[in-house]
Amino acid sequence: MIIAGDLVAGTGTEVRGFDPVAGHDLEPGYRYGDDRHVEQACAAAAAAFGEYRATTSERRAAFLERIADDLDAARDALVDRATAESGLPRARITGEVGRTTGQLRLFAAVLREGSWNGARIDPALPDREPLPRPDIRQRAVPLGPVAVFGASNFPLAFSVAGGDTASALAAGCPVVVKAHDAHPGTSELVGRVIADAVASSGMPAGTFSMLFGSGPGLGTALVTDPRIKAVGFTGSRTAGMALVAAAAARPEPIPVYAEMSSINPVFLLNGALASRATELGKAFVTSLTMGSGQFCTNPGLVVAVDGPNLDAFVAAAKDALGQAQATPMLTPTIAANYARGVATFDADADLVVRGAPGDERTTCQAALFSTDAATFRGSAALQAEVFGASSIVVRCKDDAEMTSLVGDLEGQLTATLHVDDTDHDHAAELLELLELKAGRILFNGWPTGVEVCHAMVHGGPSPATSDSRTTSVGGRAIERFLRPVAYQNVPKSLLPSPIADGNPDGLWRRVDGHLTQG
Amino acid sequence: MIIAGDLVAGTGTEVRGFDPVAGHDLEPGYRYGDDRHVEQACAAAAAAFGEYRATTSERRAAFLERIADDLDAARDALVDRATAESGLPRARITGEVGRTTGQLRLFAAVLREGSWNGARIDPALPDREPLPRPDIRQRAVPLGPVAVFGASNFPLAFSVAGGDTASALAAGCPVVVKAHDAHPGTSELVGRVIADAVASSGMPAGTFSMLFGSGPGLGTALVTDPRIKAVGFTGSRTAGMALVAAAAARPEPIPVYAEMSSINPVFLLNGALASRATELGKAFVTSLTMGSGQFCTNPGLVVAVDGPNLDAFVAAAKDALGQAQATPMLTPTIAANYARGVATFDADADLVVRGAPGDERTTCQAALFSTDAATFRGSAALQAEVFGASSIVVRCKDDAEMTSLVGDLEGQLTATLHVDDTDHDHAAELLELLELKAGRILFNGWPTGVEVCHAMVHGGPSPATSDSRTTSVGGRAIERFLRPVAYQNVPKSLLPSPIADGNPDGLWRRVDGHLTQG
Repeated sequence: MIIAGDLVAGTGTEVRGFDPVAGHDLEPGYRYGDDRHVEQACAAAAAAFGEYRATTSERRAAFLERIADDLDAARDALVDRATAESGLPRARITGEVGRTTGQLRLFAAVLREGSWNGARIDPALPDREPLPRPDIRQRAVPLGPVAVFGASNFPLAFSVAGGDTASALAAGCPVVVKAHDAHPGTSELVGRVIADAVASSGMPAGTFSMLFGSGPGLGTALVTDPRIKAVGFTGSRTAGMALVAAAAARPEPIPVYAEMSSINPVFLLNGALASRATELGKAFVTSLTMGSGQFCTNPGLVVAVDGPNLDAFVAAAKDALGQAQATPMLTPTIAANYARGVATFDADADLVVRGAPGDERTTCQAALFSTDAATFRGSAALQAEVFGASSIVVRCKDDAEMTSLVGDLEGQLTATLHVDDTDHDHAAELLELLELKAGRILFNGWPTGVEVCHAMVHGGPSPATSDSRTTSVGGRAIERFLRPVAYQNVPKSLLPSPIADGNPDGLWRRVDGHLTQG
Repeated sequence: MIIAGDLVAGTGTEVRGFDPVAGHDLEPGYRYGDDRHVEQACAAAAAAFGEYRATTSERRAAFLERIADDLDAARDALVDRATAESGLPRARITGEVGRTTGQLRLFAAVLREGSWNGARIDPALPDREPLPRPDIRQRAVPLGPVAVFGASNFPLAFSVAGGDTASALAAGCPVVVKAHDAHPGTSELVGRVIADAVASSGMPAGTFSMLFGSGPGLGTALVTDPRIKAVGFTGSRTAGMALVAAAAARPEPIPVYAEMSSINPVFLLNGALASRATELGKAFVTSLTMGSGQFCTNPGLVVAVDGPNLDAFVAAAKDALGQAQATPMLTPTIAANYARGVATFDADADLVVRGAPGDERTTCQAALFSTDAATFRGSAALQAEVFGASSIVVRCKDDAEMTSLVGDLEGQLTATLHVDDTDHDHAAELLELLELKAGRILFNGWPTGVEVCHAMVHGGPSPATSDSRTTSVGGRAIERFLRPVAYQNVPKSLLPSPIADGNPDGLWRRVDGHLTQG
């Protein structure tokens, strides 16, 4: 573990990386920390907060870039270790290094652009009747130390130096990471890179710590520590809701950004299905089986009007999936949960096809089911996420049934429509409803693959996330760790530079309600 | 009650306005609604949502202005009734009408300016290696029907047509108000104005409903109705936390914006105290006793270094407060709670002075206490808000003790510093700490009186509010009822106008991360 720059050995349960391809544990062993380590990490984060948040945007941007550069420099070692620990393909992990460093550099750009300050100025109106208006200014300040929970399925991009860490550090918040048991070795490598960047960038040591521990044990201790002011989490619905409950029960409740559960419905509209059912069936299986289906945005539901075109889609998907090799899953626990989840589908829906079988303890045997809309709507089990390459085709009687089914869906990270020009009327109807259900709506593509950019939303209504007003990917993720403060009649020499006279930071600011860079 | 434009009589407990000056109930009686009325109002709001949110910004702006104009036209009747029901001075209530209509017009301006759409566009990069970038656009959509709880202390500005209603309606959310028992007649007048504006503006009838009922009964039913997607509340810490808990326990948790409890510390720095202790003492009492101290931002705590200058401040305050007449409180319940709260202070601190006594059942006998920093820090009772004109002077040994006391304070709506030029070093130190404790920091003024403008923050860390990332006053209040949605490769003809090509709405948009109106 790393606590404020010091390497610290835990004293609890031993965890090891597990190579699901080779089928054996990896050296070395790591040990869980205890309440004392939580105490040390939180105390160090709280002590670092004042100095860290006072650093300029430029210094924090350079710090994030330093982490990105050093991760790039360590790419080979990272790819070796993360590939071994995750069983994910080497090319995918190589891409994930790029995504991770890309996220850090995006937030460096967000910091330099400066709108994150939320600067607003309503100048005094001393002659206003019946009362003069005071000078009121507003800017954002960071919430305080943030607890980040690494995810199993992105050992880099949603883990120790992942999106939550990058956006919290950008906002000016020290970070305490609980690394995921699925990839302790990768976590150590990344944690060392960040700790070194903290030191070489002259940031206070407590800006970053990384602990190992169980969710209910050390994780809860972290979330309930009074010095922690926000939480970022990606994982299961059960674990996410437990963190939300723990945070809400604190004397001072804090926000929890938990990204949890989504089945990512795909709507195949009639025109698209008529013109390219076979092609869609094949492409669907590619998206479904990528990374053994271990994506938050995996297409777990396909909705279309029943008929020969849908039959052709299902036939193509059946053909492609029937040939799919069993591929490694991240951990034996995830493989076991996947098998259990597929069994619950089996009870309520018709099996279309399974992929080739493999070692049940470590691999994912892909699965496709089919059912009608009435059965789907009546089954909570079929609406639940099964993490891995499993999906259900829901056959609707007509367009109206497709549309009305949207109302029964829970909140989603994504919703996808495949359309031709002839489908635009129905697509417009669905779009209006899906806007209220999903964080991202995409056309004629597949939901796996989340672009890291300014306009991205990776979020959505409950249970997709615990806070639909935010995103965990893209430029706006920084806003999760900020709050506005108003300054009334503050003497000019005491005003923070983002809202000082003369706009010394050259920001876009809202003056009397209007944006200006003056 | 008003449900989707229909006047409906409740069937439960009867409530009446009470005139605390005259000391008698007012006609007519109103009756609490039941679960059936909640069901009807929520069903109507849900039915209205699709059409209402699809209205243009311009139409919603004109609708808000219509409500404002009609409230202005009804000013005399509103002032008569609200003055009678609240016991607040006629001038104060007249000002509150202006504040209420000013809020509605501010949100009309926010709608027309258009940045509330949060429009972002990252254009496609088809030639990017290794993978092309899709076209990603982002805009905000409203959350859905909002439940608003009227406050006792602002029968207009934080009630039926208050800030929560105005910002929710601006965002495109239908509103169901639970009117406060303290002013049913005022609520009826305002509710009729809104319902008429809904009809004459051609908005769907379910855009607005108003119910009477108890907090634990009808209020909880409203917050737990699955069609309600957010809650605005101003009131006590106990009631606010109960709503937060009820909302968190829903199958689909929703945000609750509860503005609850704040003692609004005022720091008198040495230079200011040396140059104008007597003047400050008098002005403090004016702020403390205004409206019988029934403001969320009432100065309930004064912190300064002990010595002759602080003695002079206390002497001036004692003199002014000793002459203060007992003034009416909003309701007998509030008066009883005030008396109880003052008694708890009496147990832990030294009484400086009480104002003139009055009818204990209906009036506020102002109270000022004094204690040392150690006693204050050791007493939870002294840190609790007593709603009404009661305050405590905390005597510190030195500047360092003043500064360290900030760390023990709970979250606050406001923090105030009185400074001279010689105090700037100490003020800078305090400012840095107070930014993390309060939503608004003001210099050389008094916290009562919240300007309605673009840069205002009326919010703050728990327990001041349940969500420090937002404000309930000022332009940014609209953001509480919005969430971002990303649109990926959406056909041009299906793109919503805020993010359409060619910028048809003329908005400021973030394109590739940079603001542009092009």
